[in-house]
Amino acid sequence: MARDEPAQRREGNEIEFGRIVAFSDGVFAIAITLLVLGLGIPKGLAGGELTDALFDQWDNLLAFAISFAVIGRFWVVHHRFFAEVDAFDGRLLGLNLLYLAWIVLIPFSSEVLGEYGGETPSVVLYSVNLAAVVLVGLWMGVDARRRGLTSIDDETHRETRIRSTYIAGVFLLSVPLAFLAPRAGPYPSLLLFLDPSPRLARR
Amino acid sequence: MARDEPAQRREGNEIEFGRIVAFSDGVFAIAITLLVLGLGIPKGLAGGELTDALFDQWDNLLAFAISFAVIGRFWVVHHRFFAEVDAFDGRLLGLNLLYLAWIVLIPFSSEVLGEYGGETPSVVLYSVNLAAVVLVGLWMGVDARRRGLTSIDDETHRETRIRSTYIAGVFLLSVPLAFLAPRAGPYPSLLLFLDPSPRLARR
Amino acid sequence: MARDEPAQRREGNEIEFGRIVAFSDGVFAIAITLLVLGLGIPKGLAGGELTDALFDQWDNLLAFAISFAVIGRFWVVHHRFFAEVDAFDGRLLGLNLLYLAWIVLIPFSSEVLGEYGGETPSVVLYSVNLAAVVLVGLWMGVDARRRGLTSIDDETHRETRIRSTYIAGVFLLSVPLAFLAPRAGPYPSLLLFLDPSPRLARR
Amino acid sequence: MARDEPAQRREGNEIEFGRIVAFSDGVFAIAITLLVLGLGIPKGLAGGELTDALFDQWDNLLAFAISFAVIGRFWVVHHRFFAEVDAFDGRLLGLNLLYLAWIVLIPFSSEVLGEYGGETPSVVLYSVNLAAVVLVGLWMGVDARRRGLTSIDDETHRETRIRSTYIAGVFLLSVPLAFLAPRAGPYPSLLLFLDPSPRLARR
Repeated sequence: MARDEPAQRREGNEIEFGRIVAFSDGVFAIAITLLVLGLGIPKGLAGGELTDALFDQWDNLLAFAISFAVIGRFWVVHHRFFAEVDAFDGRLLGLNLLYLAWIVLIPFSSEVLGEYGGETPSVVLYSVNLAAVVLVGLWMGVDARRRGLTSIDDETHRETRIRSTYIAGVFLLSVPLAFLAPRAGPYPSLLLFLDPSPRLARR
Repeated sequence: MARDEPAQRREGNEIEFGRIVAFSDGVFAIAITLLVLGLGIPKGLAGGELTDALFDQWDNLLAFAISFAVIGRFWVVHHRFFAEVDAFDGRLLGLNLLYLAWIVLIPFSSEVLGEYGGETPSVVLYSVNLAAVVLVGLWMGVDARRRGLTSIDDETHRETRIRSTYIAGVFLLSVPLAFLAPRAGPYPSLLLFLDPSPRLARR
Repeated sequence: MARDEPAQRREGNEIEFGRIVAFSDGVFAIAITLLVLGLGIPKGLAGGELTDALFDQWDNLLAFAISFAVIGRFWVVHHRFFAEVDAFDGRLLGLNLLYLAWIVLIPFSSEVLGEYGGETPSVVLYSVNLAAVVLVGLWMGVDARRRGLTSIDDETHRETRIRSTYIAGVFLLSVPLAFLAPRAGPYPSLLLFLDPSPRLARR
Repeated sequence: MARDEPAQRREGNEIEFGRIVAFSDGVFAIAITLLVLGLGIPKGLAGGELTDALFDQWDNLLAFAISFAVIGRFWVVHHRFFAEVDAFDGRLLGLNLLYLAWIVLIPFSSEVLGEYGGETPSVVLYSVNLAAVVLVGLWMGVDARRRGLTSIDDETHRETRIRSTYIAGVFLLSVPLAFLAPRAGPYPSLLLFLDPSPRLARR
C-alpha cells in the first residue's frame, strides 16, 4: 500500500475510495428513511379519534418533509464534494465520520421538532444540528483543499465557502429567533435550497 | 465536469449516475424492510393470550404483504425507468427525491392501514400515498422525456403514461369508495400488478 | 432493450442484474441488523433491577444469536444460488421478492420467539417462517432451473433440492413438536448449518 | 465453482468478494445509524419540561457520540483488514458474520449505557461487547493469516495482534473497574483511537 506520495496520502485505491462513498451513501439512505419513524399514531383509537390523530400528525409530516428535503440536499452537496476529492487520508475519513454523525442526528432533531414544533428548545436543537452539519462540511472542505486532497478550482471553493458560512450563520441566527418567535423556527432550513448554479453559470 | 452539452445536462458521469440509483435502491430496501416494524405484539402476555395476539396481527400481516408487494413493484418500475435514463440534472434529482419521500411514507401509511384496516381515514391515507407515488413517478417520467433525458420510445412512453394515469385514477377513486365501503379499501393497490407486457408483446 | 432471446429472458444486462443482487443484499443487511431491535430494557429502573432486566434479556439474546446465524446462512445460500443465475425475468424477480418478504419477517418472528421462547405459538410462528424461506427458495431454484435461467449442474441441483426439502421438513415437523415440547422449539434451525460441502467434496 | 486451488480456497471470485464487503459495509452503516434510536424524548411534555427532557438526553448523546466513533473506528479497521484479504472460504465468512453480530449488538449496549451510564451492569455489558468485537476480529485475523488467506506482512500482523490484545485487555480490565468506579466506565473505549501509524512510520 506504500506509495511515492507523502505519508498518509492516497493510502487507498479507487476501490477503497468507492467504499467510503458507498458507506456514506448508506448512512444517508438509512437516516433519510428513519425519518418515517417520527410518524406514528396510537393503537386502539375509536373511529372518530383516528381522523383527529392523523390530523395531529400534521406537524410531524411537515418536519418529515423539511428534513427529507434537507438530508436529500446535504446528500447532493456531499456527492458534489466527493466527486472532486482525489485523495484521502485518515483525517478526511475522521471528518467524514464526524459529518455523518450530525447527519444521523437529524432524525432525532426532526422528531423533536415534529412533536414540539412551536417551542423554543426544539427549534434550537434543530438549528444547531443543521448548522453543525454545514460547519463540519465546511471544515472538511477547507481542510481537504488546504492539504491538496481535492481539485476544486478557486472560484468554486470560494463560492462554496461563502455559501456555507452564510447558511450556517442563518441557522445560528435562528437560535435567538427561536427565543423570540419559535413558530418561525424550521423555515431558515429552506435556505439550503438556494442553488448557486445560476450565479456560477453567469461567469 | 464541464461538458459540451447545454448547461445542467449530464453534469455527472456514469459513476455519479450509479450512485443516484444505488442511493434510491438503498432507500427502497430500507423502506421495504421497515414494514416489519408494523408488526409487534405486547410483552408479558399469558400463554393463551399469545395465540390471540398473533391472530390479532392478521390485519397487520395483510398490510405487510400488500405493502411489500407494492414497494417491490414500485422498485421494479423505478428500475425500468432509470435503465432508460441517459442524462440527469438537478431537477431530475429533486423529482427523484420527492418520489422517494412518498415511498418512505408507505411504511407509516401501511402501519396505520394494518392497525385500522376497516376504517375510512386509514384507507384514504393509504390510497393518497400510493396515488402520490404514481403521480410523482408520472411527472418525473414526462418531465425527463420532454427535456430529452431518456431514450424511451414513443409507444412505451404513451403506454406508461396511460397506465400511470389509470392506476393513480383508481387510487384516487378509491378515496370516495373508502367513505362508502372502507373494508374494500387497500385492494385497488393490487392493480399495480397488472403487467402491460402481454399487450406490449402483441404489437 | 430488445434482444434475440425469447420474450422476457435476459431482459436486463449485467448492471441490472447487479442491482437485483445489491437490493437483495441490502434487504438481508437491514433485516439482520433490525434483529437488535428485539433487545431492549425498560427505562427508569433502580440499580439492582438493571442487572435483573439484563439477565431477563437472555432469551432475547439467544433468539438474536440464532436468528443472526440463520439470516447469515440464508444470505450465503442466496448468494451461491445467484452466482449461478445467468438470466432473469419478471417471474424470478417476483419469486425473489417473495423470498425476501419471508426474510424480512424473521426479525418479527425472532422477537416473538425471544419474548415467548418456551411457548407453542411462538415456536410455530418461527418454524413456519423459516420453512417458508426454505420452500420459496426451493421453488425459486427449481423454477429458475426448469426455465433454463441457471447453469447449476445436475448433481448440485439434486443435492440442493434434497437438502432444502429435508430442512423444510424438519422445520414443519417441529410444528407438532412445539405442541408437545415447546422448549425444544428453535433448535431445529441449527440444521441449517449442516454444510453439504464434505459430501460434495467426496465425489 | 470447482478450482485447481486446495479445497475451500478462493471459492468465490472478485464479484463474490465485493459482495461480502458490501454486505459488511451495509451492516456497519445500519448499525451506526440505528444508534440514533437510543435518543428519544417523551411525548406531551409542557414547555419547560421539554428543555429538561433534552438535557436529560445528555448521557444518551454522550453514548451516541462514543459509540458512533467506536463503530466508525471498527469499520476503518475492518476495511484495512479486508483490503489485505486475497482469498476467503466458508470459515472466514462465518467468522465475519460472528464479528458483525457483535457490531450489531453495539446499538443495544450503547442504549443501555446511555440510559444507565453510571451503573455497573451497563458498563460491564458495553465493555464485554467491545472486547468481543476486538477478540473476534483478532481471531479472524490470526486464523485468516495462518491459513494463508491474507498477504499482511509479519511486522504489521505482529503489531495488530499486540494492539488488539492490548485493547481487548483494557476493555476486560474495565469490567472490575466498573464495579469499583462505574462512572469511569465507557472511557476505555477511547483507546481504540490510538493510531499505530506513527509507530509504524518510524520503522
